[in-house]
Amino acid sequence: MSAAVLSRQEGAVRILINNNPATRNAIMPGLYAGLPTALAAAQADPEVGAIVLTGAGDFFCSGGDLNQLATRRELPLAQRREKLEGLHTLIRAIRNCGKPVIAAVEGGAAGAGLSIALACDMLVVARNAFFSVAYVKVGLTPDGGATAFLAEFVSRQILTELCLTGDRITSERLHAMGAVNRLTDQGAALAEAVALAARLATGPARASARIKTLCLHAYGADLEAQIELEAQLMVESQGDDEATEGIGAFLAKRAADFVALRGKPNAH
Amino acid sequence: MSAAVLSRQEGAVRILINNNPATRNAIMPGLYAGLPTALAAAQADPEVGAIVLTGAGDFFCSGGDLNQLATRRELPLAQRREKLEGLHTLIRAIRNCGKPVIAAVEGGAAGAGLSIALACDMLVVARNAFFSVAYVKVGLTPDGGATAFLAEFVSRQILTELCLTGDRITSERLHAMGAVNRLTDQGAALAEAVALAARLATGPARASARIKTLCLHAYGADLEAQIELEAQLMVESQGDDEATEGIGAFLAKRAADFVALRGKPNAH
Amino acid sequence: MSAAVLSRQEGAVRILINNNPATRNAIMPGLYAGLPTALAAAQADPEVGAIVLTGAGDFFCSGGDLNQLATRRELPLAQRREKLEGLHTLIRAIRNCGKPVIAAVEGGAAGAGLSIALACDMLVVARNAFFSVAYVKVGLTPDGGATAFLAEFVSRQILTELCLTGDRITSERLHAMGAVNRLTDQGAALAEAVALAARLATGPARASARIKTLCLHAYGADLEAQIELEAQLMVESQGDDEATEGIGAFLAKRAADFVALRGKPNAH
Repeated sequence: MSAAVLSRQEGAVRILINNNPATRNAIMPGLYAGLPTALAAAQADPEVGAIVLTGAGDFFCSGGDLNQLATRRELPLAQRREKLEGLHTLIRAIRNCGKPVIAAVEGGAAGAGLSIALACDMLVVARNAFFSVAYVKVGLTPDGGATAFLAEFVSRQILTELCLTGDRITSERLHAMGAVNRLTDQGAALAEAVALAARLATGPARASARIKTLCLHAYGADLEAQIELEAQLMVESQGDDEATEGIGAFLAKRAADFVALRGKPNAH
Repeated sequence: MSAAVLSRQEGAVRILINNNPATRNAIMPGLYAGLPTALAAAQADPEVGAIVLTGAGDFFCSGGDLNQLATRRELPLAQRREKLEGLHTLIRAIRNCGKPVIAAVEGGAAGAGLSIALACDMLVVARNAFFSVAYVKVGLTPDGGATAFLAEFVSRQILTELCLTGDRITSERLHAMGAVNRLTDQGAALAEAVALAARLATGPARASARIKTLCLHAYGADLEAQIELEAQLMVESQGDDEATEGIGAFLAKRAADFVALRGKPNAH
Repeated sequence: MSAAVLSRQEGAVRILINNNPATRNAIMPGLYAGLPTALAAAQADPEVGAIVLTGAGDFFCSGGDLNQLATRRELPLAQRREKLEGLHTLIRAIRNCGKPVIAAVEGGAAGAGLSIALACDMLVVARNAFFSVAYVKVGLTPDGGATAFLAEFVSRQILTELCLTGDRITSERLHAMGAVNRLTDQGAALAEAVALAARLATGPARASARIKTLCLHAYGADLEAQIELEAQLMVESQGDDEATEGIGAFLAKRAADFVALRGKPNAH
């Protein structure tokens, strides 16, 4: 794994760290391959129930490296496009990972850093952190899904303002907008994210993966398409040992033990 | 009509009651056919201007019957899928009904009960009631449109949390999220819903049906498709006696009387 | 330009005024052609960085002229449909204009007036102003994109209520719903909108046009489609003198001067 990504295990939680603290964790080329590789490893490991993505030191990610972006215009269009694919691959790796990925944000998330934070399934943010679409300030335009992710929860009027001004969004405002799962004291985002991840890790792993799929497809989908996807996945869930355990525990008025089923094939 | 659904008329308002109070109105098989039948009857009756859907006693609906769900894995996939269609038919019946359907929620709405409440056109909720996506707690995944309906107004980050934890959402929180039309004192949801329905019943019936169609199609639709639908329906509305009455009353500075036109064919 | 639209320049801001104050700026036939023409002129003028749309006197727009609408039923369907196209052309002209269009709302915006206000990229509203979907009150149904624009930020339950009742929405409520960029004292909406527009006018013009495109496409779009659009426009932005100036200024720790590049072709 590239040094651009550090990895650490806490109980059933894999912590992945964007590691470039000298530049507030600006995106290094190594992150584009390193993070998908680290996510694939977490996905494959039965000891991992959920994943937390954070930044080294006290900042999540300041976005693209402007020294590198400054040289992009020297490249032909096709090569610029190719370089952008690295970010898309990373965004898709977060979404396609079958385990929940929680972003733990200290300090801030700007530009592509905001895109990465919002690509995650959940968001835990320190009260003093800020977010910024940023790009316009240097004459650029958003990428990495920033406009898609913001449009899931803000009005077009506010989306336009955020993108045209690049102004900072405080954690409190993002929380009021409804996109923050936990707002914490400064320095406490990682611990809170790990606690939330540890709780999710006690849930039914296969049902949770199906739920992640449903949540990702729910935005902009036609109702009939979403209902059809729900039905397909429900039928799978009904045949899963997780449901046998879950329903059985409920009817017996005991706590369900889904962890014992993690990584095991269905008995049926 | 099945005993799973009780029906009562108050003025121009048809009240439909999910009737299985012994299990907090868990969904009985009879509801799948009974509610669509009751809605079709309300639709056909010119005395009905709007519909309120509620639960018997002090609870809206606790969702699927877990004793029945426990046996689903014994069925082949195709039969499981077929059983699910009952819920979809019910959800579609609420949406396809040309008259407004208001959910009056006391106590709570969990699992498929939440899906049914959110499928309605409007939501009146007692302050002490709660909502829960629930499914994950028993190793299952949401159905009945739950993820589609929630995605219409919550962020993906919160949707994911609600679906992965199954945690309760208080009425106040759902109201703050913007999905509750009226928040009432405990025990007052039905009366408030009936009052709102009675008011809607004084409106232009055919224009109201067109408006319901527009509201259902507005989410996830392409702007041009939605504008086209608005235009088609506006052209119909312009040729309707309801518009003649409405515009005429406005220009004459008198109150419009749309009720007299209910169930009558256009004079033109 | 038709007298239905007045035009005025303040610095880099073009102010366009819906001018029919005798009827609280109800839509005159001249507005349908006049506003697109005025927007095209503002688009073509390199001195214009951003546009503010407002109403003459102390009201934004009271919607369609009911005396005219009353006669529509005499027309064949095809001609009614044709008349509606005027409004759609106007709505598309606001959206297709490559420069940001900010609505400055005093008094109120009702019916098609609400559609026009919400079609704009941003919204500045005086505290005492109100909004109303209105149509149902005269037996009509929404047009001009009203249901599409509202669905971008309100729940279906609230959208249905607003459309079925025609009730007034206060500025404060619309602000709480997240669709208002600036809430001002009575009489101060225009000045505040002009100040916001003047600030946007100092930004990179071509990047801003691309950002407007992204914001318009972000709602209801498939994530992959939106990411693809972001990538195409980012690749263009990277080759633009605006990015050279923006990134160069950032790295040199000086303020970027995008205004000097406005209306000039790329040096590359």
